[in-house]
Amino acid sequence: MKQKNIYMDNAAATRTDPEVVKAMKPFFTDTYAVASSQFSHTPGIMAKEGLDKSREIIAAKLGASSDEIIFTSGGTESNNLAVKGVALAHRGKKNHLICSRIEHNSVLQSCQWLEKEGYKLTLLDVDSDGFVDTDQLKKSITPDTFLVSIQTANQEVGTLQPIEEIGKICKEHDILFHTDASLSFTHLNLDVRKIQADLVTMSAHKIHGPKGVGALYVRQGTQIQKLQHGGYNEFDLRAGTENVAGIVGFGKAVELNHNDQTTFITGLQRKLLNGLKEQIEDLNVNGPDDLSKRLPGNVNVSFNMVEGESVVLHLDMKNISVITGSACFSRSLEPSYVMMSMGFSHERAHGSIRFSLSRYNTADEIGSVIEACKEVVDALRKISPLSNKEM
Amino acid sequence: MKQKNIYMDNAAATRTDPEVVKAMKPFFTDTYAVASSQFSHTPGIMAKEGLDKSREIIAAKLGASSDEIIFTSGGTESNNLAVKGVALAHRGKKNHLICSRIEHNSVLQSCQWLEKEGYKLTLLDVDSDGFVDTDQLKKSITPDTFLVSIQTANQEVGTLQPIEEIGKICKEHDILFHTDASLSFTHLNLDVRKIQADLVTMSAHKIHGPKGVGALYVRQGTQIQKLQHGGYNEFDLRAGTENVAGIVGFGKAVELNHNDQTTFITGLQRKLLNGLKEQIEDLNVNGPDDLSKRLPGNVNVSFNMVEGESVVLHLDMKNISVITGSACFSRSLEPSYVMMSMGFSHERAHGSIRFSLSRYNTADEIGSVIEACKEVVDALRKISPLSNKEM
Repeated sequence: MKQKNIYMDNAAATRTDPEVVKAMKPFFTDTYAVASSQFSHTPGIMAKEGLDKSREIIAAKLGASSDEIIFTSGGTESNNLAVKGVALAHRGKKNHLICSRIEHNSVLQSCQWLEKEGYKLTLLDVDSDGFVDTDQLKKSITPDTFLVSIQTANQEVGTLQPIEEIGKICKEHDILFHTDASLSFTHLNLDVRKIQADLVTMSAHKIHGPKGVGALYVRQGTQIQKLQHGGYNEFDLRAGTENVAGIVGFGKAVELNHNDQTTFITGLQRKLLNGLKEQIEDLNVNGPDDLSKRLPGNVNVSFNMVEGESVVLHLDMKNISVITGSACFSRSLEPSYVMMSMGFSHERAHGSIRFSLSRYNTADEIGSVIEACKEVVDALRKISPLSNKEM
Repeated sequence: MKQKNIYMDNAAATRTDPEVVKAMKPFFTDTYAVASSQFSHTPGIMAKEGLDKSREIIAAKLGASSDEIIFTSGGTESNNLAVKGVALAHRGKKNHLICSRIEHNSVLQSCQWLEKEGYKLTLLDVDSDGFVDTDQLKKSITPDTFLVSIQTANQEVGTLQPIEEIGKICKEHDILFHTDASLSFTHLNLDVRKIQADLVTMSAHKIHGPKGVGALYVRQGTQIQKLQHGGYNEFDLRAGTENVAGIVGFGKAVELNHNDQTTFITGLQRKLLNGLKEQIEDLNVNGPDDLSKRLPGNVNVSFNMVEGESVVLHLDMKNISVITGSACFSRSLEPSYVMMSMGFSHERAHGSIRFSLSRYNTADEIGSVIEACKEVVDALRKISPLSNKEM
């Protein structure tokens, strides 16, 4: 019999909680009207109620009001809407925006597209742990700056940025602040009153909700233009029939998240990181060593003298699912831009492995993964030309 | 006990087929990895297989090849991508586009947004049955025209446009042709080789698939730019994690559609239209009387001397779900732009009711709805000041 899969790629997508699927089901087969038909008939009212309830759950979790939550098709759309929507609203008035070099592609490439359209873009550097320098941020601000977009947690190395400090700086300079919280929302008890963000990106499938659903918090009064035209849905900021079932699932997923799960995940994370460090020699931790400055569940290490893709494929043969920052798996044929921006060598990026945990992982799985990594790395080092050279 | 709801708002959204829900379920709780991790691990390969299978089903249905199908978050996004994506790709080269006055808002408002951005837009008129005039189309074409966007079937009055003829005209003038087939895909056996369209919009929730999923056919070699940035998904035309479960559901929905269902729906449509005409005096049929020129399942009539919203609300009290083109239910506080473009009076638009049927409707329901309409219209006419004036 095939061994059960040990899934540690939760920063890409998580298992949809069966309770979430249960909550969505009636909105597929019973309450399937569009929410915008609420004024025409009862099935429309019922759909609208499902939509509203999720909006309230998510708003409450963020310390926001319901009419500040815009549902989208996912974190990528939310990031596009935040960055480009705010840029379009400031066109002809202000034209400078700032983000870090290690933002998710959906922020980075949106900013770069705007640059081609004539906007000025400043990319903030990060240090070897992935942190932005708030002094560089302050120096980069000009009277022309309308937006700063800095993620809450990095997707590869888990670095938690000092977003409260960044929020404060933006507020002092009267600049809008967007943070992509796709991975950290629900884990970090984000409150928009505290972090002073004007725009916050959320994603359902990172927190045991369905794929194809996200949200953008937009503080009341924020100057932003819609990108998707064709109706007046979502407070006239995002046209299109609302994905009611998916949105209901998103709300349920948020409801099901508790702080003790985060504590549990952080426990597994510590066990995995310490175990790898104890069991395997010649290893670099990528991202902060201090877990309080790291996304719960994220472990990223480079095994020196082996290629990340070999480790990934051997672990897959042992039914363990992880990813690497190596170039061979990227469309761009370049190693991870996150690691390059952190000043790492190509070799270190090539050898990097990301483990990302969820509440479905277990302490037993952590033990198995440490053991499997040791086996795989030992075996690969034996045949590695890099390793042989060292001997 | 409350009477079972008779749902006749299928042009807004259809019931997700329980078989579709069943097909999606494993992609929520078992195969939940992202499809783009196919090169890293087996769960990714399994997700990719689900995605690919749906792509093949939809491509085959359209007579297209798999790499010409781009999955989106719905018909609205597909229409935005088709119109604006093609416009951006032609910027600085050609700047004139053409659509009809009765396109879905997602085409119309995308075109109008482009007009504000400096593009030239021609809106084609329609006759009193909602048909565009292909002579006017020919006369509107200039050497600067890059796109014609004409829907396959109208969302309110069901008019089927002469898209084969339009496709031919576009081909002769070397202009791209986009058709929004959200409502007609699967009903009409659309084949892109026959209709000569370069871009075709599809939507899952109009054909018993889930909300939040759509597709755009993009003929190989079509000049188009992506709108949503952040990765290389969907042949680099639409960034963002693919909604695998939803897409699998979309594929299943397409598989479940058969011509005999369309024949069945057309039978119900005829029965409803004839019944209303026989039972209720002073009624106008909106859109073509000839059902072969009308979207299967669409019936749209105006009951003179009554307000559409009164009819809709009284029918809702009888558990019958329909909509009206009356101004009171629209965000713009204007009566249906479709009916206004067809040259109707405000009164006729105000009194219009759209019934849209699906394979879940029954002959018994048609009987009940005709009877209910007669009761409601008779009662409303008795107290109508418009009606009293006539006596």
